[in-house]
Amino acid sequence: MGASLKNIQKKYTLFKKKWTPQQNLFYGFLTYVLAGFVLLCIPIFHKTDVSILDNLFTATSAVSTTGLVTVSVFDSYNFFGQFIIMILIQLGGIGYLTFTTYMLLSTTKKMTLWHKKILSTEFILPESIQIKDFLKSVIIFTLIMEILGSIMFFIVFKQDLPFFNALWSAIFHSVSTFCTAGFSLFNNSFIDYANNPLLNFTVALLAIFGSLGFIVVTDFYLKVKNFTHKISFTTKIILYGFIILLSFGTCFLYWFEPSITQLTQGRLLASFFQSMSAMTTVGFNTVDFGLFNQSMLLVCIFLMYVGASPSGTAGGIKITTLSAIYAIIKSRLRGQKKITFMHRVIPFERLYIATSAFIFYTTIIVLGTFLITFTNDFKFEDILFEVASALGTVGVSTGITTKLNTIGKLIIIVLMFIGRLGVLTFGLALWHRKKENQKHKILKEDIAI
Amino acid sequence: MGASLKNIQKKYTLFKKKWTPQQNLFYGFLTYVLAGFVLLCIPIFHKTDVSILDNLFTATSAVSTTGLVTVSVFDSYNFFGQFIIMILIQLGGIGYLTFTTYMLLSTTKKMTLWHKKILSTEFILPESIQIKDFLKSVIIFTLIMEILGSIMFFIVFKQDLPFFNALWSAIFHSVSTFCTAGFSLFNNSFIDYANNPLLNFTVALLAIFGSLGFIVVTDFYLKVKNFTHKISFTTKIILYGFIILLSFGTCFLYWFEPSITQLTQGRLLASFFQSMSAMTTVGFNTVDFGLFNQSMLLVCIFLMYVGASPSGTAGGIKITTLSAIYAIIKSRLRGQKKITFMHRVIPFERLYIATSAFIFYTTIIVLGTFLITFTNDFKFEDILFEVASALGTVGVSTGITTKLNTIGKLIIIVLMFIGRLGVLTFGLALWHRKKENQKHKILKEDIAI
Ligand SMILES: [K+]
Ligand SMILES: [K+]
Repeated sequence: MGASLKNIQKKYTLFKKKWTPQQNLFYGFLTYVLAGFVLLCIPIFHKTDVSILDNLFTATSAVSTTGLVTVSVFDSYNFFGQFIIMILIQLGGIGYLTFTTYMLLSTTKKMTLWHKKILSTEFILPESIQIKDFLKSVIIFTLIMEILGSIMFFIVFKQDLPFFNALWSAIFHSVSTFCTAGFSLFNNSFIDYANNPLLNFTVALLAIFGSLGFIVVTDFYLKVKNFTHKISFTTKIILYGFIILLSFGTCFLYWFEPSITQLTQGRLLASFFQSMSAMTTVGFNTVDFGLFNQSMLLVCIFLMYVGASPSGTAGGIKITTLSAIYAIIKSRLRGQKKITFMHRVIPFERLYIATSAFIFYTTIIVLGTFLITFTNDFKFEDILFEVASALGTVGVSTGITTKLNTIGKLIIIVLMFIGRLGVLTFGLALWHRKKENQKHKILKEDIAI
Repeated sequence: MGASLKNIQKKYTLFKKKWTPQQNLFYGFLTYVLAGFVLLCIPIFHKTDVSILDNLFTATSAVSTTGLVTVSVFDSYNFFGQFIIMILIQLGGIGYLTFTTYMLLSTTKKMTLWHKKILSTEFILPESIQIKDFLKSVIIFTLIMEILGSIMFFIVFKQDLPFFNALWSAIFHSVSTFCTAGFSLFNNSFIDYANNPLLNFTVALLAIFGSLGFIVVTDFYLKVKNFTHKISFTTKIILYGFIILLSFGTCFLYWFEPSITQLTQGRLLASFFQSMSAMTTVGFNTVDFGLFNQSMLLVCIFLMYVGASPSGTAGGIKITTLSAIYAIIKSRLRGQKKITFMHRVIPFERLYIATSAFIFYTTIIVLGTFLITFTNDFKFEDILFEVASALGTVGVSTGITTKLNTIGKLIIIVLMFIGRLGVLTFGLALWHRKKENQKHKILKEDIAI
């Protein structure tokens, strides 16, 4: 009996090894979503009836750390339901493999080449960063930040809520913020706290650290431990890019968004908060995006499209990809043969990944928008905003999420899933087979473009 | 006196040789636009007052063969004004350099390497096609098609118009169609002729031949002259791509566009005509695009975005670029290292041009749309449609062109100019300097993307 169980286990392990790293990630996330979905369907976790589709939507939104919701989390799920959602956010945020690989590391003290390969798919990293160090920092850093966040949130919430509620809200929002999930127990996100300085600071701190990500943190951690450590080029690009884009978004909203320019107080804070929310992809809001005008929605869509750092919890094409795209445009316009950025040649492999990501991401946004305009009837800018928000795993909305029809909700579910997995990983998981026979007769001929 | 004039001419020639080919094209087109603008401003060419901005708009629209108008051509300009517009369309359509180089060829019987270089910028061609043959075919082909078109249009128009009007309309629309300019002397384009089979056929024939372009024609011409001639890979891609995309657009409009599904007759013809109009970028219409729903506008935007062939008069990123983008997506998803299309490896240089074109084109569409949403107040899909139409030099509109404010009109003028010149050529003309000193200290370091 035991031997046959072992046999099955062995066969399963062999079966798993047949998967590409991308397929492993794909099925890993899918397992989380489905497990969460099944759990959330159990009526004992509900305050009110929740449809099967809405439970699937919530589970996908939690695992993908998006935060779009078709039902109110607070009104629909009881404490245990909310707890499940928090766990799904945490699992999704730290990531299927970071977590499982750490479990493996802490028990066996060694990591197989196989797992290293999967990890480097999940976080496309330069080889100079050691994966073991990287993982330890991730876990420790997450714990520290979430405990710190819980304390700060608790100080805010204990003024308005009874002790237990304040404590639970603090923990839930801390996890939700650090994983840039943007799930809230308040039905209007943080609009009631728009001018609370501590809340704004806490959200910004957790979301920025979470989204800037583990590369940047590992880099700084090493710098602190060893003063001679040189901060990597990647970290510098991410930091500069983040500051530039965040300032750009804040200025635009501050000067040109009517619903913000009319504010009598907290105008700069509101501009900063919504820009930060879009860029870190945390997705909380302190003003109503439904009131934004077209051009400012486009600014936010651009920020969501970019996202933040490749090793963080944020979605989007990432600042590093944007900088490579910028480098291509600049070098091309100058007629340079080599693509340079900040006086450095970008290797061909990186350019290939960047252009692929740009092409894939743009194609999926266009396709998603088309499908929703085809099946639903909303203002075009609201649909584009919703799609960018879902694919970027941001979770802000102009308010159409709850009004989407069944097909619309299913499209958003798929977009959130693709967004969390990454467009390239998602594509490779579905179409790349291991050791495919390439029987193509390859010819070389020129095409005019 | 004669000597000093010769001296000035010599200096001018030297000055011109300092320009890059792209700058030469840029200033060439700019000269046409400005000359046309100045001529159109002269009151003797007007039926009614036309503002300076509207004259600039008309001149740019004509030279760029776009066909967007802020004033009615028939109501605002008299016969001589219309004649100037036709000449501008013809110059823009055949192209600044094709024309001037032919003039040079027919007088000197030889072409300088310099001119060959400029020509290969205007039409990015595989080296296997001879430029001299190419040019001859262009001119002869244009004449034959426009005379044929004039006769066919005349047969249609003589039923409704007096002799001279019918003749002039026939010639004007023939030039306008073959150059895919879409300028019309009728204020509602060809809506009154929606069910006239000969008119539909004439427009389709001229526009498809004009937009498929001179590569395809030269290739077929050589095939007819010499049966053993092998039709090039490029021509095949263009033909297949054109047929696939045109069928795709026609089917979508036929089945899903309410203003077409409600038609009692000519439903298939109307679907075909609007798709053909968007893809060839001729820009005539037999139904009102203002009535189209969001998703069908997106289908048309996609067709305009692509356009047709690299050697034709159409705008857009071209079918060849689209096929390279498709090849990148497909090869990437399969995990192939080499980018292949139809079992052929696409050379790196071509991929570089294709991805640059995709990035540039997409960036400019997004930027143009943002600027118009920022300064004007229309439905988002109408603005996106207008921008794609201007940049693709298509000229269809949902009806907002005349309602744009001054800044809006200026943005569309710039977009039409960029569209005609090509996004890469435009960029290179502005920023690429000959023999720039590259003092960059080039380092090589990896970035994570
Ligand atoms: K989020
Ligand atoms: K046109």
